[in-house]
Amino acid sequence: MPSLLVETVGMTAAALTTLCWAPQTVRIIRTRDTRAISLVTQATLASGVLLWIAYGCLLGSIPLIAANAVTLALVTAILIMKLRFG
Amino acid sequence: MPSLLVETVGMTAAALTTLCWAPQTVRIIRTRDTRAISLVTQATLASGVLLWIAYGCLLGSIPLIAANAVTLALVTAILIMKLRFG
Repeated sequence: MPSLLVETVGMTAAALTTLCWAPQTVRIIRTRDTRAISLVTQATLASGVLLWIAYGCLLGSIPLIAANAVTLALVTAILIMKLRFG
Repeated sequence: MPSLLVETVGMTAAALTTLCWAPQTVRIIRTRDTRAISLVTQATLASGVLLWIAYGCLLGSIPLIAANAVTLALVTAILIMKLRFG
């Protein structure tokens, strides 16, 4: 398997699981509705993503740090809105 | 930095970002409320996690495959309930 194809699959996966949080963030900003969203899920997800950044720092992996920093910003925004809107 | 500590941080990160989907799944099963959840986010997340599994297969990485298989099961359950409950 050519390594360019392998890395393209990995980078597309990273892009999708990072940018997927943008529509949820926009939806909550528009509707202020967070009732169906689990607070435990959002808080645990934010903690996990923070640890992925720590892991990226320990390994010196810029892609791991960068992708998870964007994810953390979006997931934290959703968490804050969940805490605010209930 | 001892490598056991580094790998513990990575494995804890993987456990948190995998198992965090269980409370959201249970919440929807109990309440049947998915209104605030973005369909685009859930569909994109499921696609991204599927590509992480493909990437794990291409690399032959069992941890990458296993963690993302559990995530995919939970995220797909949420996606199906979103499509069903609206």
